[in-house]
Amino acid sequence: MIFNTRQWVKPEDLNPNGSLFGGKLLAWIDEELALFAIIELNNPRIVTKFLSEIDFKSSAKQGDIIEIGIDIVKYGRTSITLTCQARNIMTKDIILTIEKITMVSLDENGVPTPHGKTAHQ
Amino acid sequence: MIFNTRQWVKPEDLNPNGSLFGGKLLAWIDEELALFAIIELNNPRIVTKFLSEIDFKSSAKQGDIIEIGIDIVKYGRTSITLTCQARNIMTKDIILTIEKITMVSLDENGVPTPHGKTAHQ
Amino acid sequence: MIFNTRQWVKPEDLNPNGSLFGGKLLAWIDEELALFAIIELNNPRIVTKFLSEIDFKSSAKQGDIIEIGIDIVKYGRTSITLTCQARNIMTKDIILTIEKITMVSLDENGVPTPHGKTAHQ
Amino acid sequence: MIFNTRQWVKPEDLNPNGSLFGGKLLAWIDEELALFAIIELNNPRIVTKFLSEIDFKSSAKQGDIIEIGIDIVKYGRTSITLTCQARNIMTKDIILTIEKITMVSLDENGVPTPHGKTAHQ
Amino acid sequence: MIFNTRQWVKPEDLNPNGSLFGGKLLAWIDEELALFAIIELNNPRIVTKFLSEIDFKSSAKQGDIIEIGIDIVKYGRTSITLTCQARNIMTKDIILTIEKITMVSLDENGVPTPHGKTAHQ
Amino acid sequence: MIFNTRQWVKPEDLNPNGSLFGGKLLAWIDEELALFAIIELNNPRIVTKFLSEIDFKSSAKQGDIIEIGIDIVKYGRTSITLTCQARNIMTKDIILTIEKITMVSLDENGVPTPHGKTAHQ
Repeated sequence: MIFNTRQWVKPEDLNPNGSLFGGKLLAWIDEELALFAIIELNNPRIVTKFLSEIDFKSSAKQGDIIEIGIDIVKYGRTSITLTCQARNIMTKDIILTIEKITMVSLDENGVPTPHGKTAHQ
Repeated sequence: MIFNTRQWVKPEDLNPNGSLFGGKLLAWIDEELALFAIIELNNPRIVTKFLSEIDFKSSAKQGDIIEIGIDIVKYGRTSITLTCQARNIMTKDIILTIEKITMVSLDENGVPTPHGKTAHQ
Repeated sequence: MIFNTRQWVKPEDLNPNGSLFGGKLLAWIDEELALFAIIELNNPRIVTKFLSEIDFKSSAKQGDIIEIGIDIVKYGRTSITLTCQARNIMTKDIILTIEKITMVSLDENGVPTPHGKTAHQ
Repeated sequence: MIFNTRQWVKPEDLNPNGSLFGGKLLAWIDEELALFAIIELNNPRIVTKFLSEIDFKSSAKQGDIIEIGIDIVKYGRTSITLTCQARNIMTKDIILTIEKITMVSLDENGVPTPHGKTAHQ
Repeated sequence: MIFNTRQWVKPEDLNPNGSLFGGKLLAWIDEELALFAIIELNNPRIVTKFLSEIDFKSSAKQGDIIEIGIDIVKYGRTSITLTCQARNIMTKDIILTIEKITMVSLDENGVPTPHGKTAHQ
Repeated sequence: MIFNTRQWVKPEDLNPNGSLFGGKLLAWIDEELALFAIIELNNPRIVTKFLSEIDFKSSAKQGDIIEIGIDIVKYGRTSITLTCQARNIMTKDIILTIEKITMVSLDENGVPTPHGKTAHQ
C-alpha cells in the first residue's frame, strides 16, 4: 500500500467535541481516491461509484497527522477497484479501512468508457 | 424517513469535472447523522462508528438542491442504528442510500456509555 | 413556522471570542431563505432583495445546534415575502428573528418575472 | 465614510446562479463591523446587537472587487452605532447600505460594559 | 505605505499549535497584492510572478487583527513592482515584510501586455 | 526530492480569472513543509521562519493535479533547511521552486530548542 497524501488535523477539521470530524476525513479520502484513479487510468473524468463498509477503529485529535494509503485490487473494463486505509502517521494506529472502492472512468458525455488498462505500469 | 436539512450545490462543492464532489456529500451526511443522534439521544458526545456500503446511484450538479433523510433502525445499549438517503429535492432522484449507520454515545472520557433510550419519544 | 435545516456550531464557525460568528449565522439563514423560495416558487433564479431589521437576542457557542424556521408572509407578483427565526434546538432560546424578507424571482436575463403563485400548494 | 477592506469575488463566493452569494457579503460586512468596533473601542469583546433593514440595490459577479465603508453614527454608553455601505470599487455602484448597526462592548463575563468613549480620537 | 485590508485571526486560521497558520497569512497577502495591482493598473488579469524572500519576524494568535500594507516600488512595461508588510494593528509588531513583489498584467490570451502606466494617478 | 502530497485544483481554488489562486498554492506548500519538518524532527511545534525568493514559472487550471516535492538541505541546531518544488503531476511542468526554507523547532514556551538531529534516519 502506498501512502502519499498526509493531512494535518487543524481546528477547522474538528467536530464540536474536539476530535476529527468524520465527514472531513471521508472527504479527504474521497479526493485522494479520485486523484489516484485519475493518474492510474490517465483520465480526468473519474467518479466514485461504490464504497464497501467503513468501520471507524480509532479517532484523531488536533495536531495529529493522518496519512492515507491506497492499493489496487482489480482492473475492470470501465472501472478500477481500490482499497484504502487511513492511519496516524506517528502512532501507526489505523483510523479506518475501506476494503473495496469502485471508481468508474467516464467519457466526455459522462458515460462509462473502457480505460484499456489491465495492470499497473 | 424524515427529510430535514437541505444543501444547495454551490461552486465550492464541485469537483473539477463540474459535478458534486462525493466527499462533500459524505461530509454533509455525516454531520446530519451526528446532529440526528445528538438530538435523539440527548447527548452531545456522539461518534460515527460504522457505515454500511455506499452505492452512488446518481450525481448532482451546480444549483441542485439535495435533501438528506434519516430514519431510526434500532436502539442499542450504547449505540443507535440509523439509515439514510440523499436525494434531489426537485426530481426525487436518489443519489445514495446507506442502509445502516451506527452512532455511539460516549461519556465525558470518551468511553461508550448507555443512553437509556429504547424508543423514539 | 417550519424548522428544516439545522446547523452544528463547529470551531470553524466561531469568532475569536469563542461564540458563534454573526456573519456565519447570517450566511446560513440567507442560504436557507434562498432554498425555501426556490422550492416554493419552483424557480432556481431567486435573489434576496430586502431584509427587515435584525435584533440579536442571544448568542450560541461551540456544540450548540441551531435550527432555522421560515414561514410565508405574502405572495407578491414577482416576489415572495418570508419571515424567519433562528433558535437553539435544545433550549429553544431565540437567537434572532427577521420579520420580513423579500425574495425576488428572476428570468434568464436577471429581470424580475411573475412567478404565478398566490398560495402554498 | 472610510473604505478599508476590499474583497475579490471568487468562485467560492458565488451562489449557483453565478452572482455573489448574499450570505457571503453579509459575513464579510459583519466581520468588518466587528473589527472597526474593536479598534475604535479598544476592546476585543464586541458583539453585533442590531442591524437596521438591508436593501440589496445591486449585485456583483465573479471578478468584481467590493469595498466596504463604515462610519460612526453615535457613541452610546456600552455600545457604538455605525453605518455601513458596500459598493463596487470600479463602478462605485452601491450594493447595499445599512443605516444603523449597534455593536456592544462586553466585559470578561459577556456582560455589556461601559467603553468610556464619547468621540473618535 | 497604505494599510487597507485587515484580517481577524479566527479559529479557522490557526495551525494545530494555536498560532496563525503561515499559509493562511500568505494567502491573505497574495489576494491583497492582486487587488492592489488590478485597481492600480485597471486590468483584472493580473498574476503574481515573483516574491522576494520572506522573513517571519513574529507570529499572531487568535483574536489578533492583522493589517496588510502595500506600496509601489516601480512601474515596469508589463509589470508593477510592489512592496508589502503585515503587522499587528494594535501592537504594530511587524509579522513579515516582502521587499519586492512583481505582478504582471496579462491580455485576454494570458500573454503579458503593456499596461501603459508610469506613475500613480 | 520526495513528492508526497497531491492537490486537485477545484473550483474553490481558482482566482476570478480561472487559474489557480497563488495564495492557495502557497498555503498548500506551507502546510506540507510544516508536516515534513514535524515528522523529520519528531516535534509538533514547528514554525516557518524564512522562505527564499519565489519565482512563479507556470500556472495551473481547474482539474490539474499538483504534486509538492520536498528535500532536506541542511540540519541546523534548532532549525532545518528544506527545498521544495510544486509541479503538474501529468505534464511535469514546474510551477514554482523555493530554494531554501527554514523551519524552526520550538519548545513548550515557543522558544527555539535544539532538535538533536544531524542526519535523516
